[in-house]
Amino acid sequence: MESKHYNDLSIMGCTVPTRVNRKSKSDATQVNINGIHIGGSEIIVIAGPCAVENREQLLETAKQVSSAGANILRGGAFKPRTSPYTFQGLGEEGLKYLAEARKETGLPVVTEAMDTRQMDMVCKYTDIVQIGSRNMHNYPLLKEAGRCKKPVLFKRGMMATVEEYLMAAEYILSEGNQDVILCERGIRTFENCTRFTLDLSAVPLLKRLTHLPVIVDPSHGTGHRWMVPSMAKAAIAAGADGLMIEVHNKPLDALSDGKQSLYPEDFVQLVKDIEKIAQAIGRKIYHRKPSLV
Amino acid sequence: MESKHYNDLSIMGCTVPTRVNRKSKSDATQVNINGIHIGGSEIIVIAGPCAVENREQLLETAKQVSSAGANILRGGAFKPRTSPYTFQGLGEEGLKYLAEARKETGLPVVTEAMDTRQMDMVCKYTDIVQIGSRNMHNYPLLKEAGRCKKPVLFKRGMMATVEEYLMAAEYILSEGNQDVILCERGIRTFENCTRFTLDLSAVPLLKRLTHLPVIVDPSHGTGHRWMVPSMAKAAIAAGADGLMIEVHNKPLDALSDGKQSLYPEDFVQLVKDIEKIAQAIGRKIYHRKPSLV
Amino acid sequence: MESKHYNDLSIMGCTVPTRVNRKSKSDATQVNINGIHIGGSEIIVIAGPCAVENREQLLETAKQVSSAGANILRGGAFKPRTSPYTFQGLGEEGLKYLAEARKETGLPVVTEAMDTRQMDMVCKYTDIVQIGSRNMHNYPLLKEAGRCKKPVLFKRGMMATVEEYLMAAEYILSEGNQDVILCERGIRTFENCTRFTLDLSAVPLLKRLTHLPVIVDPSHGTGHRWMVPSMAKAAIAAGADGLMIEVHNKPLDALSDGKQSLYPEDFVQLVKDIEKIAQAIGRKIYHRKPSLV
Amino acid sequence: MESKHYNDLSIMGCTVPTRVNRKSKSDATQVNINGIHIGGSEIIVIAGPCAVENREQLLETAKQVSSAGANILRGGAFKPRTSPYTFQGLGEEGLKYLAEARKETGLPVVTEAMDTRQMDMVCKYTDIVQIGSRNMHNYPLLKEAGRCKKPVLFKRGMMATVEEYLMAAEYILSEGNQDVILCERGIRTFENCTRFTLDLSAVPLLKRLTHLPVIVDPSHGTGHRWMVPSMAKAAIAAGADGLMIEVHNKPLDALSDGKQSLYPEDFVQLVKDIEKIAQAIGRKIYHRKPSLV
Repeated sequence: MESKHYNDLSIMGCTVPTRVNRKSKSDATQVNINGIHIGGSEIIVIAGPCAVENREQLLETAKQVSSAGANILRGGAFKPRTSPYTFQGLGEEGLKYLAEARKETGLPVVTEAMDTRQMDMVCKYTDIVQIGSRNMHNYPLLKEAGRCKKPVLFKRGMMATVEEYLMAAEYILSEGNQDVILCERGIRTFENCTRFTLDLSAVPLLKRLTHLPVIVDPSHGTGHRWMVPSMAKAAIAAGADGLMIEVHNKPLDALSDGKQSLYPEDFVQLVKDIEKIAQAIGRKIYHRKPSLV
Repeated sequence: MESKHYNDLSIMGCTVPTRVNRKSKSDATQVNINGIHIGGSEIIVIAGPCAVENREQLLETAKQVSSAGANILRGGAFKPRTSPYTFQGLGEEGLKYLAEARKETGLPVVTEAMDTRQMDMVCKYTDIVQIGSRNMHNYPLLKEAGRCKKPVLFKRGMMATVEEYLMAAEYILSEGNQDVILCERGIRTFENCTRFTLDLSAVPLLKRLTHLPVIVDPSHGTGHRWMVPSMAKAAIAAGADGLMIEVHNKPLDALSDGKQSLYPEDFVQLVKDIEKIAQAIGRKIYHRKPSLV
Repeated sequence: MESKHYNDLSIMGCTVPTRVNRKSKSDATQVNINGIHIGGSEIIVIAGPCAVENREQLLETAKQVSSAGANILRGGAFKPRTSPYTFQGLGEEGLKYLAEARKETGLPVVTEAMDTRQMDMVCKYTDIVQIGSRNMHNYPLLKEAGRCKKPVLFKRGMMATVEEYLMAAEYILSEGNQDVILCERGIRTFENCTRFTLDLSAVPLLKRLTHLPVIVDPSHGTGHRWMVPSMAKAAIAAGADGLMIEVHNKPLDALSDGKQSLYPEDFVQLVKDIEKIAQAIGRKIYHRKPSLV
Repeated sequence: MESKHYNDLSIMGCTVPTRVNRKSKSDATQVNINGIHIGGSEIIVIAGPCAVENREQLLETAKQVSSAGANILRGGAFKPRTSPYTFQGLGEEGLKYLAEARKETGLPVVTEAMDTRQMDMVCKYTDIVQIGSRNMHNYPLLKEAGRCKKPVLFKRGMMATVEEYLMAAEYILSEGNQDVILCERGIRTFENCTRFTLDLSAVPLLKRLTHLPVIVDPSHGTGHRWMVPSMAKAAIAAGADGLMIEVHNKPLDALSDGKQSLYPEDFVQLVKDIEKIAQAIGRKIYHRKPSLV
């Protein structure tokens, strides 16, 4: 039970728009993904490769993260890459491999849409549509996400204040889609030993200001695989409703983000460690019913 | 003539992609807008309101900036706004007013495209397509801009490093469009007395690393109209090829960015002051031939 | 046991000076404060008011944090304040109250030195000398701290990179004092809903790069008392060796940092919650032997 | 004459303390250094090496900058260095060389004090005491500077907001010393192609909020010698009252900051270029009367 001394929100002076504002909705929003509820008492673990690179890579990684206890599979078919000359994703071919991996493992999938013109196609294949950090301010895309019938995993922009982030989330809700999962993934600072600075204080802040579930991506947030376990545990201790972890069957061969991708065996250990932290704060990781697979 | 001691680029350690790299093209790119060359010895002044709000506002402001010496008219028909509940722009109606203002004043126009699906329509009406700061990482939009047949005014992302900015510009050039105008418009820092921190050191840096013209937007870069003249002069002194200035016929009534919009009479003075700085560095403001109007 | 895949440090490219570098010392440094070891398996909790305001306030708060389980008492006698017109601390009078509180509670005390000329006096009264964030680059002060015979609690500068922080710590060690406790306390970013951005990734980073103990100050790091418990738990989960928490017997009357100071009753709860997180990662909070008091 | 539309200060919401506030003093403060007035209509150029390295280096550079038109000589005898293992300055020996250089060239000198215990000695030799960026929050040092009888060149902290900077300047004025020269020297941002981000918008901001003179240091602000001329010109165009430029007789041999130090011949050209910008805004560089030397 929270202290009576913690109920003053006025000190923050944040402007929070209507629909995402927790004052507009007394109970926490639980986003239902085929029976998995994000935002309830159970912790959700999303895992998989940065990009879908080929059929074998995705299926093998999917089985590995599934057996380790992941609840949802991630993998990018459309990749926002800094350079136009690097791997840009497999496109629809990648979406088909994701559908196949879902069938094989029973895991719902999440993948990113980058273009308003792709939204219908992405929604046809995916269980959750991801809007990536670079597109947090892409308002036409947010509106399309608000009109689609799928839950939206909406990442914080790498330079967005929490206030701007919530204003942007409001674009999705204002189009009628309330199934929005927030995700802290690191902000840009002057520090350069890490890829970004994972802003874990955003977790209690977002949980307090909104009714939406909040997860954390420590892979992008740090950029170093060896840091992921520490920051994943910290995220859960801070109150996150879930994690999004990059895992690759062969990180050294990854076409993107290899340095921050876990080896499957390390992901096995991570899930065990997270379970202990979850229990220490009175929560647990969601476990699928055997019949689903 | 530049000092022999200034020719060492290796100290910067920046990675600059092929097509934007000045090493790939010995002469500076001059973008030709109906006879106005951006990137040559003459300074170009783009001015106009943040948003096209209605016919009267645009036409009146257009005439005012034209008679004060502006070379190109700006005005947004599609506006990327932080909140979904604020004015989002007039859309195609706004584009039509821009076309009318061009006819009345003889000024070419620049306006922003935010959605890949709008690109054809925007290009039909405008002389220069603007890609805004919030869309610097919107790669599908950049590719569309690279395929359109119009020059592109490409603003730096508010949190982008110069290196990332050039990687993003490369997306446009790699699709075959070399007519790209770079624009510094302020980056996000901890300083909060200004809206952003105008990074004028990006001007000599971009001029050195690339062959593309570089202009500066001191209106967004500062957020305060009274700062615009100082920073506009500083931008020209730093070597910018032009300016983009927000001017509104009635700033107090503006639907967006009123605090940073100049009154028309102050813009008149600004152009005169800029002319003096231009002369001090051996340049001048471009002046239209009378017959064009 | 850590994964074999986590042993590549080269990816970080950080320059770590000799004496703080863990390569120069295979075992972790444990700083011994009257029998309390910081940097071993046990978690240390430092608590107390931001500033020593008067005798009653300090003694009452000291007893409260002592009975709740704190291990070390904090309190500033010399305060680095943003404005010259606000309370600057009690000076030597404050140091005397700290000595009295130590006698009453048995808790060792930590207090800040700001001026090379104060170092001898501060060392006479305190068990640990604190160098504050604003003085991280105050090299003459660091050298004096390196020459004093007391352990040093050395806070990260609010804008310092980890690399610079370690270079500064090296100033202390290079003068012969190896008893240095590092402390992450938030860095400055563009985010403005929190006072600073607590950079918890600095915890695993510092633990890996150096042999020194690392603690976290979530009070300054967030600026909001209601955020302190979440971030304190996250800090321990991330691997911190201890916490530094601001507690005030009457936060609403505090002369400084009232908004981020815990009520004593909330601190009681915090210690219990921290104990659970500590156990989840195989550690525990240090408990004094009864005979010591 | 400034526009009537620029007189609203309330939009900034900055808190400016009493003594530095321009509302408390209607006329601009002109700091008088042996007859050179900083903060009047004339531009002041401070130049010299980062550090006093030896007698020959200082005297040679001093003569070079003097004959090129510099008004004041800079040179550090006490150096705040990131690493304890690099050159820390010559101390009093360096101060003596500065005094000798002053005698030879007739230029007043400015040098940094880092420690309250050094203040008397530094003041004995120097015409202006510099408080460096790393010591902006070193309040005991500021108080000593406020008590000394010499003008103070007070650099902005590399991560300080303008508001904090002015609060810190107030420490000096509140001790009775009103001869304070403010200096923008770059702030820390995520951009990494430049050493810092020179915040030229701080120039009009500081000039508006305070009555104190404002100069700019483009050498530290950029970190690259080839950028110094562009940014020096921009600083003057933005309204700065002067410049502080690092010049070294042999930059490649410099013990610190060699990459950002101008060659003497390039400094000659810089002064000429600055003169033209100064004239374009109705100012000029201060020129010594021949009899002074």
